Formats: sequence, C-alpha cells, structure tokens
Amino acid sequence: MKLLALGTVALDTVKTPSGKRCDILGGSATHFALAARFFCDVNLVSVIGEDFPSKHLDFLRKKGVDVSSIRRQPGASFRWSGEYRGDLNAAITLKTILGVLSEFSPRINPGQRKISNVFLANVDPDIQLRLLETIKSPRLVALDTMNYWIDTKRQSLFKILKKSDIFLANDAEARAISGERYLINAAKSLKRLGPEIVLIKKGEHGVIAYFDNTIFSLPAYPVDNLVDPTGAGDSFAGGFIGYLAKAKKINKNTLKKAICYGTIIASFNVEGFGVERTSRLTLKEVNQRVRNFKKLMHFK
Amino acid sequence: MKLLALGTVALDTVKTPSGKRCDILGGSATHFALAARFFCDVNLVSVIGEDFPSKHLDFLRKKGVDVSSIRRQPGASFRWSGEYRGDLNAAITLKTILGVLSEFSPRINPGQRKISNVFLANVDPDIQLRLLETIKSPRLVALDTMNYWIDTKRQSLFKILKKSDIFLANDAEARAISGERYLINAAKSLKRLGPEIVLIKKGEHGVIAYFDNTIFSLPAYPVDNLVDPTGAGDSFAGGFIGYLAKAKKINKNTLKKAICYGTIIASFNVEGFGVERTSRLTLKEVNQRVRNFKKLMHFK
Repeated sequence: MKLLALGTVALDTVKTPSGKRCDILGGSATHFALAARFFCDVNLVSVIGEDFPSKHLDFLRKKGVDVSSIRRQPGASFRWSGEYRGDLNAAITLKTILGVLSEFSPRINPGQRKISNVFLANVDPDIQLRLLETIKSPRLVALDTMNYWIDTKRQSLFKILKKSDIFLANDAEARAISGERYLINAAKSLKRLGPEIVLIKKGEHGVIAYFDNTIFSLPAYPVDNLVDPTGAGDSFAGGFIGYLAKAKKINKNTLKKAICYGTIIASFNVEGFGVERTSRLTLKEVNQRVRNFKKLMHFK
Repeated sequence: MKLLALGTVALDTVKTPSGKRCDILGGSATHFALAARFFCDVNLVSVIGEDFPSKHLDFLRKKGVDVSSIRRQPGASFRWSGEYRGDLNAAITLKTILGVLSEFSPRINPGQRKISNVFLANVDPDIQLRLLETIKSPRLVALDTMNYWIDTKRQSLFKILKKSDIFLANDAEARAISGERYLINAAKSLKRLGPEIVLIKKGEHGVIAYFDNTIFSLPAYPVDNLVDPTGAGDSFAGGFIGYLAKAKKINKNTLKKAICYGTIIASFNVEGFGVERTSRLTLKEVNQRVRNFKKLMHFK
C-alpha cells in the first residue's frame, strides 16, 4: 500500500535532560515515514536546502522511503532548535530557521498523483490544500496542523478540515480550534468541522479518539528511559495512519489497533534522540511491545 | 469486610460551568465512603461542627456507612468553597473555613481498633499517624495527602509513608514529593519511600500505578456530561481501596480491577454536583460501565 506524506525534513538541535544533539535528522515527514514504513510504501513530499547532507536522504532511501519528491532548492535547510527542561511534554523552541521552507511549493510526479492515502503534516494549510488538489482520487486524507495556522490561517484550515477524513491535533491545538477546554467536547466539536475521525494527542497521557459516536482512550506506553520526545507525535501519526492505510476497511477494531501501533512506535521514538531509536527499530520489536501493552491493560 | 476511613466531612460551595451549589455535603471521607460502600462496610472517622445538618449524617447512615466516629464538636463545620473555570482538572479555592477541623483529634471505639483496612485521606500527617497507632493489626494502609503537608510537614509525611502499603497522590503532589517531573520516575521514586503500591491520579487523563516493578496505566472513562469534578479523586480512592480491601489477595489482576472500579465510580461522581450522582448509584450501574469500559479498550 502506498502512502504520500507532506511535511518537513529538517535539521534539529535538541537539548533534553539526557543530553544534546546538533543538526540531527528531524522533521515531521521524517518521523512519520520511519513509523509508517512498517505498513506502507511511504512517499515523502518536502523541501531541503543546499546544505542538507545527502547521507540523510540515503538513509531514508535505505529504509524504503521514496524521496523523489523531496526537492533540493537554493538556500538554507529548515532548522529547528529546542530544549526540554522539567516538562518533557512541551518543548521550548529556541530558534527556527525556515530557509527554503518559506517558499515551499510541493510538486509530485504523475505516479504519486494516483496515491490515494495522504498524510498532510503541519505546514501552511494553503500548501496542504494545493497538494491535495493534485491527488486524483483521495481515499484516506489525514491532517495535522499547529497553533500558528489556527491563529493566522483559520479559514484555509477550515477548508482543508472539510476535505479530511482524519484530523490529528495535540491537546492545546484541539482546545484552540474548538474553544472547548474539556477534550471530549473538543473532539466532538472538531468532528463537526469535517473529519470522520478526530484524534487528540496528549503526550505522556496518551491519546483520545472520536469515531462513530464513540470516544476511545489509550494511555501512553510507560517508557522507562525517556530521552527525547521530539517527533513522538509524528511517529504516532506514522504508525496510526500507516496501519489504517494498510487496513482494508476502517472500523472500531482497526481504529483501536492503529492507535495501539501509533502509541507503541511513538514509545520507541522517545527512547533516543531524533531517529536514533526508530532507525534501527524492527516490526518484530514493535509487535512484541504491542503484545506486552495489551497484556498490561488486560485483566479478568 | 470492614474499612476504616479518616478524612473530612464538609460543607462545600462549588461553582462550575454547569452551575452552582451552596453548602452541599462534601469532604474526602464522604466521597470515599459513597464509593467504597459497594465493597466494604465503611466506618468514617471525622469531625463536624454544631451547624452541620443532621440530615447529612442520616443520609450516610442510610447508605450503610458507620458514622459513630464522626464527632460533633463546638464550633463551625469545615467549609470549602471553590470554582472550576476553563480547566476542569484544577479547582480554584475561593475560601476555606477550617472550623472544628483545626483541633481535630480522631477517636475510634474499641471495635473499630480491630479493623485492619485503613484509608487515611488528606489531613495533617501527625493526625494520620496518631490514628494509625490505635489500630491493632493493620493489614492494608492506604494514604493520601496534599501539597500543603508536603511543604509544611515533610518529616511526618515521610514517617507515615513508611507505614503505608498504598500511596495515592495526584500528579502535582507526586512531582512535589519526588522532585521528578516525569510521572513514571515519580512513581518509582515514591515507592522507595515505603508503599508497595503507588498510584498517581491524573484527573481527566486517568491514573498510573506502580506495583511489583510494573507500571500500569488506565485512561479516565470518557464522560459526556462533566458537571463537577469535586471529590473525583476520593471517589476513585473509595472504589480502588474498597475493592482491594475486599479482595482476598492483592496481585496484578486484582490491582487492575481495583483501578478499573475506582475509575468507573469516579466517572459517575463527576456527572453531578457533590454526591448528587453517587448517592443514587447502584452496583449494577457500576458493573455495566465497567463492562463497557473493558469493551471500549478491547481489540483483537
């Protein structure tokens, strides 16, 4: 099954209580792809600058990711620098260099236009709309966003929400769009904006999903060694959307399994800086932890 | 099975987005008892003032609660007044009148000294210690506290923690005592202070428990109609400790079931002001929601 993912491929500098890494491979599309690859052939749509190390593209290729629509443009690569202090749920952004991202216009090849499963990670909603318009027959469209677009491009965001099947938001975003503080009400309110499935990511508190008039909750997998939360949300999205894209039909059971796979892959992601842990992750390890998680929650 | 619970019996004035109630029956011991009564014969140890309406004691008696050690003393009853605004997870305390609580010295009768299951709700740790010393052969001692005692009576708190089998804390308290921001580390750190079981209450995000080198998480039950969160933590404790006290032995399975019952009874508690919902709650309704919750989380 093919899956097209629009997002960022970035160079991250991250400091957490566990240490620091400079200019490591990051970005929403990267983390998404490394999780979704277990279920789908992932095609990334992104932009990088002249200074972006080719070894990172080689690495993605080796992981089976199609990088033909990651365009290299004149200028600097997108860079993010952040720190996690006491609260590992919330990064403090120290610096953002948009670079080539500021004039990003996604282009895909004719073959990719036929891909029917699409993930639109957090970029300008107008860019998300533009890419979606080039898709011939979308079957599953999943959308992510961030507070910045909620504040500055609300109308475009509402337009793309109407065209989406799945909306992923973190708790702050869900509250900001819906105006509801209580997340269950927020989820219901977001569903009225278009998507069949609303999924709210709560970091260390897990996720809640709203689908078919039912609220599902799943806690995060309890990780002993929390190193770097960067990309956990995109890892979750990758496992979740990847699993759903592969599933023949979406019902309550496949949705719960997809949430579980997203949760588990995200739990591996936070055990290392950047892609350190997910780059060497195997499906066998994922399945083992899925079984352990189910066992942990099961009782007679 | 008998269960002795030390805590407050109060008159609450509460304002939430759903409305306002004045001088309604509240207090940690009250909410605890109304949940634990489904599993145990609850004996309350508390103090009330001259102005405390007798109808509330009659009500507790009718619910099967032994109120013989709720002493009426000269002076005003303990009153708490609070408001929930946007964030239904955190109350804003508007006013606290300690009244008779400020000179509370718990006394129990000889029969109650033989009760081996004890819940010590949030009061001065020196008072908790004093009561515990009068218990002949404690089997299961569960402890709750609050930030005020962590700040002002740390040594006494550590002393009673050493004598406790179960420690219940909310996320802020767990972080304040342990100095750990990440709750899984906080739980592990708290266990080193004495209790075999550490349970961290996270409000709308559910709970995590640490027991036998294993972390268990359970999300909150998704409630449609969140009216008043006051007492949810004590309702949880009542269902949780009540179930464990009744269980012949505590293992991972009984612990998970106890967490589930606590979660479900707390979910009913928040559907009404004060004890409005839990006062007319039946075990049949509880079991039905437990089954529904298990079904919600189950997938193939």
